[in-house]
Amino acid sequence: MISLETIGEAHDRIRPYVHHTAVMTNKTINERIGADLFFKCENFQKIGAFKARGGLNAVLQVVGNGEGTAVTTHSSGNHAQAVAFAARQVGIPAYIVMPRTAPQVKKEAVLGYGAEVIECEPTLEAREAGVLEVIKRTGAVLVHPFDNDRVIAGQATATKELIEDFGQDKPFATILAPVGGGGLLSGTALAAHYLSPTTRIIAGEPEGAADAILSFLSGRVEKAPYIKTIADGLMTSLSERTLAIIRTHVSEILTVSDPEISAAMRLVWERMKIVIEPSSAVPLAAVIKHKEQFAGQKVGIILTGGNVDLGKLPF
Amino acid sequence: MISLETIGEAHDRIRPYVHHTAVMTNKTINERIGADLFFKCENFQKIGAFKARGGLNAVLQVVGNGEGTAVTTHSSGNHAQAVAFAARQVGIPAYIVMPRTAPQVKKEAVLGYGAEVIECEPTLEAREAGVLEVIKRTGAVLVHPFDNDRVIAGQATATKELIEDFGQDKPFATILAPVGGGGLLSGTALAAHYLSPTTRIIAGEPEGAADAILSFLSGRVEKAPYIKTIADGLMTSLSERTLAIIRTHVSEILTVSDPEISAAMRLVWERMKIVIEPSSAVPLAAVIKHKEQFAGQKVGIILTGGNVDLGKLPF
Repeated sequence: MISLETIGEAHDRIRPYVHHTAVMTNKTINERIGADLFFKCENFQKIGAFKARGGLNAVLQVVGNGEGTAVTTHSSGNHAQAVAFAARQVGIPAYIVMPRTAPQVKKEAVLGYGAEVIECEPTLEAREAGVLEVIKRTGAVLVHPFDNDRVIAGQATATKELIEDFGQDKPFATILAPVGGGGLLSGTALAAHYLSPTTRIIAGEPEGAADAILSFLSGRVEKAPYIKTIADGLMTSLSERTLAIIRTHVSEILTVSDPEISAAMRLVWERMKIVIEPSSAVPLAAVIKHKEQFAGQKVGIILTGGNVDLGKLPF
Repeated sequence: MISLETIGEAHDRIRPYVHHTAVMTNKTINERIGADLFFKCENFQKIGAFKARGGLNAVLQVVGNGEGTAVTTHSSGNHAQAVAFAARQVGIPAYIVMPRTAPQVKKEAVLGYGAEVIECEPTLEAREAGVLEVIKRTGAVLVHPFDNDRVIAGQATATKELIEDFGQDKPFATILAPVGGGGLLSGTALAAHYLSPTTRIIAGEPEGAADAILSFLSGRVEKAPYIKTIADGLMTSLSERTLAIIRTHVSEILTVSDPEISAAMRLVWERMKIVIEPSSAVPLAAVIKHKEQFAGQKVGIILTGGNVDLGKLPF
């Protein structure tokens, strides 16, 4: 079990390397929804996403505890950059297995942090085989994107900051985060459990990657009925580890369609003047869809990242 | 002559109604250019642009001095919203003359502030005639977008904040602003003249609306050789008033092409994760184009606004 002390240690460990990100509010959006929304801007985080927190907390412990002198992971998204960035901060090699179909710009971002990119076929089997081969060849330590307590404790620090900065005088009634593999959602729920126990935790999930809601209801790790969504950071399924935390500490999972995600994303760009990726817009889309449920509430929303291909916008 | 006291009074006057906007920095952009850039984020300002400052300073004085009980202007851009917003704050009517070709979304924004929109043909003559008709009909007081000392003093408060917040320990070597009619540039130059006299003021201007550089060199108000640029907020020519201030207090005007503006805009969106309009990117485009001139310097840049049609991006 990840304790409050563990989350505090994670925060102290990563603090020299990450941003204590800004929290934004927007009068027009508040008026439209009829609630007080506080957006935690992890799009302004290092590497453009909250994943820098978890990646750093894991990599710093691998090195600090003498567990290894290199790290590896497989990812086509922000976690690849997070591990490459973290390894660069402590001066160890990182080997990132990426599907050959990953956008060139993402490969270049990882290479830009000095990591080695190993291309593989775009299947989970090929990615896992690629990582095993890297481990055999280099002795690198795997940093899993979410099925890892250190990663979860690192992601928890975003909500810790949100609650410490803006949830003291009056606690948040609700805090929302998106759910993919469940690392961020687990960290969000644990931070609130310890620091703001009256706060309800709600997840937003794309209809086109709706595994978490099924798992949440059945109690087993389920697959999504189909995978097709613009929220490309949320396609992964939960693990046993994240499902257990989520079943204990999350109140509800709300699903939203791609048009609802796109509209929420556009609202943030137009009104708040900040760039967020589709996955970031999922919780706001859920709040807009169910606004009567949040009426008059003080609500926190984790805006998870801003790494979006400007040449391929959904609007 | 607009004094330091006048700028201070403007700041006190508008402070209850506007944001004291954030200043952002970005390590990657600094490394790419080899300078320390401080971006004053007026895209986060009320109405999404610095124009809220000048509009408010003028409208508050019209009402406070008993000069009138209604205001008018002609504009297809951010100044229209600024005057409508300011009038709404003090509870007086605003009559905004807009070319019938102005985007529907801009008309709706003005209507959203409770102003009356009067449509006219898209020529300067028709716009000025429209305003005269409004004045005759309603007795409204004209708030010119830049040829107005109160508007200039209001715009000066953005640079006042930038210098007071980040230019104390070590003064800015240079502060840059874009130039259209010259209201913001005049205010920027005056604020720096009083509060940071060693700071050089440099303007960025689109090649496709290059009147200010010609006027700056000749000493007369010149027309641009041609008008064609994505920086749609900078198409206007200087007035005698703004030219006089700019000739006295501005060091240099640097022109940039539309591809250079678009690239600078994209860099800000991708790296800083904020939405800025093309006009806002003009000074950064000038810094990138002439980066040897800014090497090692502490540089301030006014990001003027973030009102951009997401359906019509230049990239």
